[in-house]
Amino acid sequence: MARTGPKRDLPVGEVRRYLEPGPIVLISSRLHDKTNIMTLGWHTIMAFSPSLVGLMISSGNHSFDLIRTSRECVINLPTTALTDEAIAVGNTSGIEIDKFAEFGLTAEEGEEVGAPMIGECHANFECRLYDDALVNRYNFFIFEVVKAHVAESPKHPKTLHYTGDGVFMVSGRVISRRSQFRPDMLG
Amino acid sequence: MARTGPKRDLPVGEVRRYLEPGPIVLISSRLHDKTNIMTLGWHTIMAFSPSLVGLMISSGNHSFDLIRTSRECVINLPTTALTDEAIAVGNTSGIEIDKFAEFGLTAEEGEEVGAPMIGECHANFECRLYDDALVNRYNFFIFEVVKAHVAESPKHPKTLHYTGDGVFMVSGRVISRRSQFRPDMLG
Repeated sequence: MARTGPKRDLPVGEVRRYLEPGPIVLISSRLHDKTNIMTLGWHTIMAFSPSLVGLMISSGNHSFDLIRTSRECVINLPTTALTDEAIAVGNTSGIEIDKFAEFGLTAEEGEEVGAPMIGECHANFECRLYDDALVNRYNFFIFEVVKAHVAESPKHPKTLHYTGDGVFMVSGRVISRRSQFRPDMLG
Repeated sequence: MARTGPKRDLPVGEVRRYLEPGPIVLISSRLHDKTNIMTLGWHTIMAFSPSLVGLMISSGNHSFDLIRTSRECVINLPTTALTDEAIAVGNTSGIEIDKFAEFGLTAEEGEEVGAPMIGECHANFECRLYDDALVNRYNFFIFEVVKAHVAESPKHPKTLHYTGDGVFMVSGRVISRRSQFRPDMLG
């Protein structure tokens, strides 16, 4: 699997375009010299400005400690070209293996956070922990996206949406209904 | 638009099958003799048992007060057959109109909560407010699904996934990768 083509900066308030449809994402993290990756489907957009995203990161994951301590992560968007890697990441533990090396993924340096970006992913959203109020009770982290990078093509990448039980929905056709929206509801 | 065929009870711990892929949903509510519906794309599964779902309900919505006061709602899953209705619901205010009447939607009685279920939707998840800790700060409501109803067919309904700017992604093909999962990661 190759890295994507060139990426452009995306205004952080526009990450909803990629996350709101509900794809699985790969969360990468770093603490000192240790990195890890986890697969995650439980997330929601929470605000545009600041650009907030809520992530459920189970405390059973090795990534939980790396992220809670470093207070940073990168949300990486895999396409169907990375289906095998996304499943393998989700079915292994970073305690036992180096997932970047094991699955042939490229750790790229971010601009704003120490957590690595995954070069093969269509988009990389650098995040800083914004509010940990619900971490202890629910493992729910509220992150601010502080820098966003997206591949220039394709415009509508094929993403994976998990339904449980080993079954995924793959994103389908894209339809515009702009003409049915009030102008103040667009953007 | 007709009501769905017969619905069956779904174990509440299995609503992730419908919500985790990230579709837009219609949130129905009731306070005294007043009902309302809103369209919502900002949600996440938070736990299986109890069955918890987090919803971002902007305080600018008429539904916000109905839901905060009644502490109940129904999460209804529209398919592409309800595209026009879902958009219309999202672009109008319940202060001015009765959305059930205006858009030809059928209010059905739930079993556990007072909020009405939308008969034309593929699935209806009756919810009670479980934790309002982040309502004031973020408009983030944590609900428990207390009863779940789903249409018996189709098995994989075509759902709508919002990307912003009047553009939707429609759910595509379904692929099973069960054989690549560890047994304890399934279910």
